[in-house]
Amino acid sequence: MLGPVELGRKARDAAACLAQAPAALRDRALEEMAAALEANVKPLLAANEKDLQQAAQSGRTDAFLERLTLTDKRVLSMAQGLRDVRALPDPLGRVLSGWTRPNGLFIEKRTVPLGVIGIIFESRPNVAADAAALCVKSGNACILRGGSDAIHSNTAIVSLLRGALEKAGLPADCVSLLEDTSREAARELMGLRESLDVLIPRGGASLIRSVVENAKVPVIETGAGNCHVYVHSGCNDFAMARRVIVNAKTQRPSVCNAAESLLVDEAIAEAFLPECIKELTALGVEIRGCEKTCALLGGLAVPASEEDFFTEYNDLILSVKIVSGLDEAIAHIRKYSTRHSEAILTNDRAAAERFLNEIDSAAVYVNASTRFTDGGEFGFGAEIGISTQKLHARGPMGLEQLTTYKYVIRGDGQVR
Amino acid sequence: MLGPVELGRKARDAAACLAQAPAALRDRALEEMAAALEANVKPLLAANEKDLQQAAQSGRTDAFLERLTLTDKRVLSMAQGLRDVRALPDPLGRVLSGWTRPNGLFIEKRTVPLGVIGIIFESRPNVAADAAALCVKSGNACILRGGSDAIHSNTAIVSLLRGALEKAGLPADCVSLLEDTSREAARELMGLRESLDVLIPRGGASLIRSVVENAKVPVIETGAGNCHVYVHSGCNDFAMARRVIVNAKTQRPSVCNAAESLLVDEAIAEAFLPECIKELTALGVEIRGCEKTCALLGGLAVPASEEDFFTEYNDLILSVKIVSGLDEAIAHIRKYSTRHSEAILTNDRAAAERFLNEIDSAAVYVNASTRFTDGGEFGFGAEIGISTQKLHARGPMGLEQLTTYKYVIRGDGQVR
Repeated sequence: MLGPVELGRKARDAAACLAQAPAALRDRALEEMAAALEANVKPLLAANEKDLQQAAQSGRTDAFLERLTLTDKRVLSMAQGLRDVRALPDPLGRVLSGWTRPNGLFIEKRTVPLGVIGIIFESRPNVAADAAALCVKSGNACILRGGSDAIHSNTAIVSLLRGALEKAGLPADCVSLLEDTSREAARELMGLRESLDVLIPRGGASLIRSVVENAKVPVIETGAGNCHVYVHSGCNDFAMARRVIVNAKTQRPSVCNAAESLLVDEAIAEAFLPECIKELTALGVEIRGCEKTCALLGGLAVPASEEDFFTEYNDLILSVKIVSGLDEAIAHIRKYSTRHSEAILTNDRAAAERFLNEIDSAAVYVNASTRFTDGGEFGFGAEIGISTQKLHARGPMGLEQLTTYKYVIRGDGQVR
Repeated sequence: MLGPVELGRKARDAAACLAQAPAALRDRALEEMAAALEANVKPLLAANEKDLQQAAQSGRTDAFLERLTLTDKRVLSMAQGLRDVRALPDPLGRVLSGWTRPNGLFIEKRTVPLGVIGIIFESRPNVAADAAALCVKSGNACILRGGSDAIHSNTAIVSLLRGALEKAGLPADCVSLLEDTSREAARELMGLRESLDVLIPRGGASLIRSVVENAKVPVIETGAGNCHVYVHSGCNDFAMARRVIVNAKTQRPSVCNAAESLLVDEAIAEAFLPECIKELTALGVEIRGCEKTCALLGGLAVPASEEDFFTEYNDLILSVKIVSGLDEAIAHIRKYSTRHSEAILTNDRAAAERFLNEIDSAAVYVNASTRFTDGGEFGFGAEIGISTQKLHARGPMGLEQLTTYKYVIRGDGQVR
């Protein structure tokens, strides 16, 4: 079992080779990776069964076990995911711009891989295959570090992927797994400045906080989404507004682009809110309201604390606040939001433009559900996560966000 | 004297205002800032004099005092720098791309400011004005933290800039100075996750290491340059090669894009190296050579240690290694380089292409001096630093690299 330092060294060498591999070779590797998963459903399920038994014994919740479980269908869908990524356009070697300087130097800015990407994730084993696919396609080596609960599943998956890489003629070390799932090893990985170019945590708030606190390599923060939907007084289509709110809150409440907080203008609160809340509570949503909301809704809402407005529930709970208008809505979102996705529902064009301009989030919507903040929905084909920081990438990160650029400069003896 | 937390809070509010300020208003502020410096040369020089006296008393080197010194000419050149930045195109609100999804959602990706930028720098007071100019132009608030040696100069400069911002109708807190130059305050600034969007250290290796070790906010590393020039056996213009090497090493040895290491193919070493080294030593350059180099050059070189090849001298010293060919040159650079800038000198097109592709540095050159890795030389108009990391920005960072993007999505009630 190799430690982070050795894995890093091998990954760096593999990355140098992978960065020079033509697109056809990277695509062949992805095809081999897909075929290897398909041909080994039984051993994968057997490995997963070991994880499931251990998790059940240690009293994990049903939701946890559900995330951890592989099935025939899930394995085949992982394989399909690899083929979907293979079918995407090559993100490497694109010339972003080029120009000639007065001294005759020709400068070209072209896309290249980041290098070695560390990915720290939790209990879903499919992340191993999904992340590896995006990294191989974009010419990056990756070091995966999954949760200890999924170690048998992850080991089995990564072992198949490595075999497939070799079969295709690429180094197995393009994809590796940190099998030591201790905290010390994770911390060592986060400090691997000589080998890692970037670290992407994929998981809950506490994982991301731990990575941000401990990492010495550049990090892309992902996934914290305290998303707001704001119904502005200029909204004249309440049915549309209810549909968007119900979708944003309930269509998949566990994910980061689900709405967690509803703001409603005072001028329309009485006309709009009761019916909307009735629809939500009928779907099992608990409402935590500000004072005015509770007064208006009576038994349908419980009082929200200050902490509620900061909370990403990832559950069928919604905080609700009645605001005096656009200014208060913008100020509220500025204070409580994680800058992931926010939506205004209105037919007032000027109000919409102000919201779009002044809300400082990765994705700002007018008259649509926050659930669209997603690589697939944006048309990126796949995503490695949704960035909530501003450096490098913001919002859904597809293949393009797994590249950087280099300047290639041609001269004939120029000096300064 | 405000601490980092209060400064951060004020900067965040100012940033929200500045982000909405039209280009004309930001430009007016830059003009006022330039005028304020020009109108106050005497008080600035008086403040600088206090710093110079203290630094002289504490026995600082002449080179240090030289960097710290302001003169009439330097103040006027700072003002001119502000006007040069004002004249650059507005980097904000550019639509990078836009597309309509099959469900009718229209997605637009447009440039916005990063938000609040922390800049930690050392003894050159002109950095305060230069960095503030780039931040204001790009709609970012900044918190400056200079060295304690320059505190009187920095306080005087920033106070003038803040007055000018107010005069133009923008919040003074768009630019602020952390007057507490203690380490504790610096560390607090580096952890200011609720206010700072990015931290850019500008200075020597130890400053950058300290920021990378301590920061909890995203960092852009700048400035470490162990740059290589490689003379390939296919080079048939030795005069050109000597000219480039002499320029890269001696034209300004103290900066990060100066060459620190020379690699020469064995096949041409005898024909090329002695004359080249004679030129360099005549200009005062000390040569630290590998065994073969020393054997060839005799008294002109001293033996290089392993450490020498890792070293960014920033001085008139050059490490020299004779290599067997392109493979060894690439492997050597891969091992020792800081991935800033590297050049190959050759007339062999295939060798040049391999070098350009396989060397993983921010800027790779064929037949030109590494000294061109510079925002001005690239045509960016100005630069805030030269990034040696791969996340967000690589190489010279101009106004574009001080922006991020947001997705603006317009719908008419779309749900998933």
